[in-house]
Order: sequence, then structure tokens, then C-alpha cells
Amino acid sequence: MALRTEDLHVGQSHEVVVVDNLTRTQIVQYAGASGDYNPLHTDEIFATQVAGYPSVFAHGMLTMGMTGRMLTDYVGDGRLFGFGGRFTNQVWPGDTLTASATVTSIEQRDESSTVFFEVATRNQDNVIVFSGTASARID
Amino acid sequence: MALRTEDLHVGQSHEVVVVDNLTRTQIVQYAGASGDYNPLHTDEIFATQVAGYPSVFAHGMLTMGMTGRMLTDYVGDGRLFGFGGRFTNQVWPGDTLTASATVTSIEQRDESSTVFFEVATRNQDNVIVFSGTASARID
Repeated sequence: MALRTEDLHVGQSHEVVVVDNLTRTQIVQYAGASGDYNPLHTDEIFATQVAGYPSVFAHGMLTMGMTGRMLTDYVGDGRLFGFGGRFTNQVWPGDTLTASATVTSIEQRDESSTVFFEVATRNQDNVIVFSGTASARID
Repeated sequence: MALRTEDLHVGQSHEVVVVDNLTRTQIVQYAGASGDYNPLHTDEIFATQVAGYPSVFAHGMLTMGMTGRMLTDYVGDGRLFGFGGRFTNQVWPGDTLTASATVTSIEQRDESSTVFFEVATRNQDNVIVFSGTASARID
């Protein structure tokens, strides 16, 4: 069933675990899919011994992509038209991320409405790793 | 060489072909990496015969991810802190996408500066498929 405007109200929140125990393999898959082969994300030796990080870490866009998947699953195909935000903390292998969308406003127009969301993705320690906004057209 | 504030001025533009002839395989790779297995993106029969599209098409977040790669390659690791925009047109297999970032303002603060960009990604017909903004901290 597609989401309908009458199913939504301001303040309503939708929350999904978008990844449970992120693996290095998923980060490598994202490198392949995006073409972003920066070794900080895929080369443990480079990340730790050369760059001084505790381990490799996820591309910010992977976190944003998994958050975007929660949004498109929630609002339905072809309805998400705006999405953006800030990368506020690193995401590491082993992290479990929960992404949430909270309705901030609904603008009704004839047959459809534009719904605005506040978006936040948190890790298992409740630290926000991505926060932003999204907008969707709902019939 | 990392990008420096003195290398930048308002109105300056940076443009990169982020994908030349997008393949269905790259879309499938993105499905695997993001976990977004909506068959509109990967199942030709479903996309054409059930959903009525001319073919499968890319996830909006793949377009955004490739655009984000241009940005992080340009500004340098760990410096992109904000990124968002609108999905304005579908991206199809065979498309060639060119992403550009144009400096809109530079806020100098002590040792570093915050640089704001207007971002646009166009297909081979010069149609904008994604447009937005980004911000980065540059030393």
C-alpha cells in the first residue's frame, strides 16, 4: 500500500535500522558501485598506518544512501524529490545505523501534497552520524 | 595537492564526467551496495511490462553518490560536510553524466574557510538530473 497524505501528520516519525553491523565488504561494494576508491574506505593498512585512523570507515555517501533507501521505501517510488544534510560523525565497520524521518510540515495542493521531513541517522551509541531534511510528493 | 582556499574564488567552476555510458551492471552494483533492491532499477521485465517505464533506471541516490564523489575528490577527504539537492530527472542506462560544482561564497574564519557550492549534474542532452548545494571546510 502506497503512503497517503491522510496517513501522515506533523510530528509523526518513521524509524528503520538501515544497517546492522556494517561490514568492510559492504563498504567495498559501495566503492565499486560509486567508483569512489579512496583507500581510506577500503585499505586497512593505508587507513591505519598511513592516515592514522583507527580503521577504515564508510563513505559519507554510503550512510546517506542507506538513509535515502529508508526514505524511498517509506514515501514510495518516484516521490522523493529533495534530500540533503550534514555528515556529522564517521561511520565504522561494526556500526548499526538507525535512520528516522519525522514529518515537519505538509503542504496540501489539489490532488497531492508536499511533505517535509527532518531526517537523522544514529549509530548504536545514539550519536547522530547524518542529519538533514527531505521532501516528497504524496498523492 | 589538497585544495586550498586561495585556489578558490566565487564563480569558479569544477566539472567532471562522473559516468560515461552508465551500465545496468553499475545500477545492480548500487542495488547491492545500498540494499535498495527495488526492481524498477534492476528488473527489465518488471520496469517495462509491469511499471510501464521504457527501461530500468538508476536509483536517484546513485546519481547523487556519483555527484558526491566529484565533490569529495575536489575538496579533499573529510572536508565535505553538507550536501543536498533535488532529483529533477530520471537517469537511464547509457547516460553519460557530468557533475559540476560552482563556488557561490567563501566564509573565511581564522585558519580555515567554509566554501559553499552550487552543484548540478547533467546528462548527455544537457538536461539537469540533479541540482543542489554543498559545503566544505577548506584549510
